[in-house]
Amino acid sequence: MDPRTGLPVVGMVGGGQLARMTHQAAIALGQSLRVLALTPEDGAALVAADVRYGDHTDLAALRTFAKGCDVVTFDHEHVPTEHIRALAAEGVPVHPGVDALIYAQDKRAMRERLSTLAPMPAWQPVNLPEDVVEFGDRVGWPVVLKAARGGYDGRGVWLVSDAQEATEQTARLIEAGTPLIVEERVALRRELAVQVARSPFGQVAAYPVVETVQREGICVEVLAPAPALPEALALRAQQLAIDIANALGVVGMLAVELFEVDGVGESGLVVNELAMRPHNSGHWTIEGARTSQFEQHLRAVLDYPMGETTLTAPAVVMANVLGGPDGGMSIDERLHHLFAADPGAKVHLYGKQVRPGRKIGHVTVLGDDMEDVRARAARAARWLREGK
Amino acid sequence: MDPRTGLPVVGMVGGGQLARMTHQAAIALGQSLRVLALTPEDGAALVAADVRYGDHTDLAALRTFAKGCDVVTFDHEHVPTEHIRALAAEGVPVHPGVDALIYAQDKRAMRERLSTLAPMPAWQPVNLPEDVVEFGDRVGWPVVLKAARGGYDGRGVWLVSDAQEATEQTARLIEAGTPLIVEERVALRRELAVQVARSPFGQVAAYPVVETVQREGICVEVLAPAPALPEALALRAQQLAIDIANALGVVGMLAVELFEVDGVGESGLVVNELAMRPHNSGHWTIEGARTSQFEQHLRAVLDYPMGETTLTAPAVVMANVLGGPDGGMSIDERLHHLFAADPGAKVHLYGKQVRPGRKIGHVTVLGDDMEDVRARAARAARWLREGK
Repeated sequence: MDPRTGLPVVGMVGGGQLARMTHQAAIALGQSLRVLALTPEDGAALVAADVRYGDHTDLAALRTFAKGCDVVTFDHEHVPTEHIRALAAEGVPVHPGVDALIYAQDKRAMRERLSTLAPMPAWQPVNLPEDVVEFGDRVGWPVVLKAARGGYDGRGVWLVSDAQEATEQTARLIEAGTPLIVEERVALRRELAVQVARSPFGQVAAYPVVETVQREGICVEVLAPAPALPEALALRAQQLAIDIANALGVVGMLAVELFEVDGVGESGLVVNELAMRPHNSGHWTIEGARTSQFEQHLRAVLDYPMGETTLTAPAVVMANVLGGPDGGMSIDERLHHLFAADPGAKVHLYGKQVRPGRKIGHVTVLGDDMEDVRARAARAARWLREGK
Repeated sequence: MDPRTGLPVVGMVGGGQLARMTHQAAIALGQSLRVLALTPEDGAALVAADVRYGDHTDLAALRTFAKGCDVVTFDHEHVPTEHIRALAAEGVPVHPGVDALIYAQDKRAMRERLSTLAPMPAWQPVNLPEDVVEFGDRVGWPVVLKAARGGYDGRGVWLVSDAQEATEQTARLIEAGTPLIVEERVALRRELAVQVARSPFGQVAAYPVVETVQREGICVEVLAPAPALPEALALRAQQLAIDIANALGVVGMLAVELFEVDGVGESGLVVNELAMRPHNSGHWTIEGARTSQFEQHLRAVLDYPMGETTLTAPAVVMANVLGGPDGGMSIDERLHHLFAADPGAKVHLYGKQVRPGRKIGHVTVLGDDMEDVRARAARAARWLREGK
């Protein structure tokens, strides 16, 4: 507890935009997020009052950071599993706990653990290049090779076309020490995501199912609710996420990324990935849901009762803002133009230097008509990216 | 400009809850509010990254603080007028400027300035106790004696019943050096408020008119929109606020507190007070309007185009949370109970130690039916105050 306020201190390992936006939510709850950042330029370090510096792979730094925290939680998946286990063994309340988090850190562990819980693409672990060739010959080419650990935003995922490419690519990655799995390339209709939050008490709150639109492996848009999703499929997706959260004992936010498919299993859904933290596919909740995923994550890890997850408008679209070409116009000027063009667009900038392709923020637009809202969000993101 | 982000640095003098909530809004805009606080326990100092310490009545401290700020603005009205004038003369962009702000700082100046602009209660300046007696005998007893400067939340306002009380009370206040005005006690139906924002460019955005419910001089509830307010009266109130903002050259948020009355002037409205900053009567905008008053204040002082001011729900109620009796239950426990009782209530705590009667936060509830929403907001505030 913070003696100045009588309210809890949540420590978040990692100082990126997720910590930055979690701090915003913490302020409303009377708290001040404690952040473990790498540098003073980290997005959260620019705005939070209680910033400590240290490397998330350094157990001593994590130990020092955890002192005085009521709960320790995470902005990313890159804290070594054994360090989290060590902290927990020393009595630090860590949420999500390592026995859950491991399935967000390690795709092989996740695929193994979910095999009896959820529909998934065909997959197998990779120890040798031959494993990939055998798998591709069996399920059909191309196949998807994935780093079991450390991938994000399209990194750590490789589409492999045939046996020769598989052999070369896999040999190179094994040589580099990358742990691998291989998956069938699913013929998907579209990608969906469900956010749920679970508290230590076991309360689970599920958000409406959303559609996530990817381009080159990076999420560019999230549509809430997922347009024209049959009610039965939406309920099945939410139930799947709730079942996973319960079975794995997740505490905090869980994002389940799904493929909507024809003819795989009976459900029309297969699980792609899990994240156990506020997630890009849930940024729309800041304005679009009664409780944002950031507030919900805090409520969950602190074992507060969960907040309402209902939509605040019939149609909500979040569009990521990537750094664009330097068109001689500063981000501040672009913001002026965007605000003039659309007074209703809500902007979230992460305090990052603009670099081409870098995720520097997002915009959210709310309204009654999904097509209209989607066009406005795309235009707003383009203003911030290109200044026109 | 902050070289790390390419975005502007707004400095806010004063570290209370208004600065705290403005910092939250600044984060979304990619900024980090620079705060001039008195102590590390100030609400904003607990959560902001860029906090400087100094007294707002110390010109040297203000000068140091202003260095590197793109704009300087205010969390309260207590910065000496001559200091603001000095800063502006030295080239510091100060918004609102002193020629506007004076009318929020000084009730006598405000009444004089608005005399040709807006309907107002009968009033007159007070130099001697006899002035009050003469005024009361003329307009009728009781009358309202007000400190021309420095009052808030019911402080600096005295209801005076007759000539004898007027003489004693006024003599005592004059003796203490309090500058005074006296006003008729208006037979009001209810209190209303309008928020508008104005930019240096001259763009003005008006929020829907709200009803403010006071108890013992302290605002306890704000209802948005003001229930059963005739459209014509609502438009007149908004136009009045826009006219005042333009005439005074306000930059930033302006809150115009109004009395709805019978038979005073032709408008059915008289102006009670002005505030030129985010104001308690506008806290409902955080969830209840598309653009919060805190974001709007930043946009205005930075000369960004204004954001949309439309309601996000048909009925929005903000209830202030006052510190209650110590019922053996911590604020954290009370929060648990509130969240269990109403998962949709939005809480804003200011990081203050709980003391009876102290404004420690507010709650906002949104919905379709004003009576229902109002009951929920009152109950939520009671949970946080009394734990039951």
